[in-house]
Amino acid sequence: MIRAPIPDLTSGERRLEGTVARYLGRVRRLQSGDAFVAFDPATGREAQAVIVWANHDAVTVRFGPLREGAARVGQALAWIQGLAKGHKCDEIVRDLTELGATRIIVVPTARSVVRLDATRNSERQARWGRIAQEAARQCGRSDPPTVETPTRWTDALTRVPGDAARFCLWEEAAEPLAPALLEGIARGAALAFACGPEGGLEATEAEQARAAGWHLASLGAFTLRTETVAAAVLGAVRVWTDAFGSD
Amino acid sequence: MIRAPIPDLTSGERRLEGTVARYLGRVRRLQSGDAFVAFDPATGREAQAVIVWANHDAVTVRFGPLREGAARVGQALAWIQGLAKGHKCDEIVRDLTELGATRIIVVPTARSVVRLDATRNSERQARWGRIAQEAARQCGRSDPPTVETPTRWTDALTRVPGDAARFCLWEEAAEPLAPALLEGIARGAALAFACGPEGGLEATEAEQARAAGWHLASLGAFTLRTETVAAAVLGAVRVWTDAFGSD
Repeated sequence: MIRAPIPDLTSGERRLEGTVARYLGRVRRLQSGDAFVAFDPATGREAQAVIVWANHDAVTVRFGPLREGAARVGQALAWIQGLAKGHKCDEIVRDLTELGATRIIVVPTARSVVRLDATRNSERQARWGRIAQEAARQCGRSDPPTVETPTRWTDALTRVPGDAARFCLWEEAAEPLAPALLEGIARGAALAFACGPEGGLEATEAEQARAAGWHLASLGAFTLRTETVAAAVLGAVRVWTDAFGSD
Repeated sequence: MIRAPIPDLTSGERRLEGTVARYLGRVRRLQSGDAFVAFDPATGREAQAVIVWANHDAVTVRFGPLREGAARVGQALAWIQGLAKGHKCDEIVRDLTELGATRIIVVPTARSVVRLDATRNSERQARWGRIAQEAARQCGRSDPPTVETPTRWTDALTRVPGDAARFCLWEEAAEPLAPALLEGIARGAALAFACGPEGGLEATEAEQARAAGWHLASLGAFTLRTETVAAAVLGAVRVWTDAFGSD
């Protein structure tokens, strides 16, 4: 079933223009009588919807009664990402959204090549927020993750509550990720991960994470690129929550 | 420790030029006396290596005695990928290599937008083979995966031996991936996965996989893009092989 985000969703008939209308009319080619699921990206509530009339630029839709959204992420899942070059963070935000992150924190670290002043930082935050909304729409998720852009690694680390199972992914860590992660999934804990940029984290940054109560964990023998780490780790969480989660 | 691929690796002193020399000298900035691990990409054997002399275009290296390569993939892991548009398959080959695939099979399916004639098909195969070698070098892996490009889905499916734990990832499948995958990991089975292109697999293709003995498995509520599936699934395999693998 096609899912589409409708801000300020209410039941009844409504004419839609802009991005959503083009998505429904042009991209998905819905016509009069076709049904889809509408969800409110702010509240996660959803409604059955039927196209009354459509052309390429606008659609008129009849929304049914509102209900609690079905396709929501059950578990709080925070990801701290060291600011990476170019469009890597865009891609990481997409992957994290598809794979169920509820909170994305992008922060410059010692080895981040990019530096953002305050203006560019808020532009990036807005951009990643839009990317997360778009990715949520495409994967049928009704509750996109929030995006935060603190300026300091230690600030990012302390934004995640201490009762979450927290893992700082560091290639020089001695412990593998699996045992403590499995324990966290099994008890239904909130999860949090932190990952460096292209060049990885410096030892002092890993030590700061450890001192703040994060597990230092390794992903094994082969070095992953930073843009692979998010998908790999949240893939592990997603597959294994099905098997071992407490829900 | 830096790892670099050295074709026809033998012990003793040798002058290197070209890509590897630039990687060691310019990218990693190794100088006289610096050590790295050399591995032979064809045999997977490796040797301790020390830079005798380096400038930007060439390096002279002394290689120690050869030994069996350490950073090899322990488990046979095949991935059948439905041919996707643009550079998506390049990125998927990189992810699969970093995450331990030993055999990559790219095949057009009913919903593949791209069609390859025989010439372009062999060009692509060669290209993906080079990308796999490069990705193996970058992640420190001594045994890059092989790349195959059959032209029919049913041919791809039957190339994987029936004693592997085989999973066809299909969003309409009723069964989750985790239980049977865990069982396969625990008994140390060879693993194999098949995944459609952007538009997913058609029901007839999923049925062909089922008839050939593959499990049909779903990855959960949210629809993943095809370029996310490989990293997510092999991330799950990697993390959980550490915890449950039979090695």
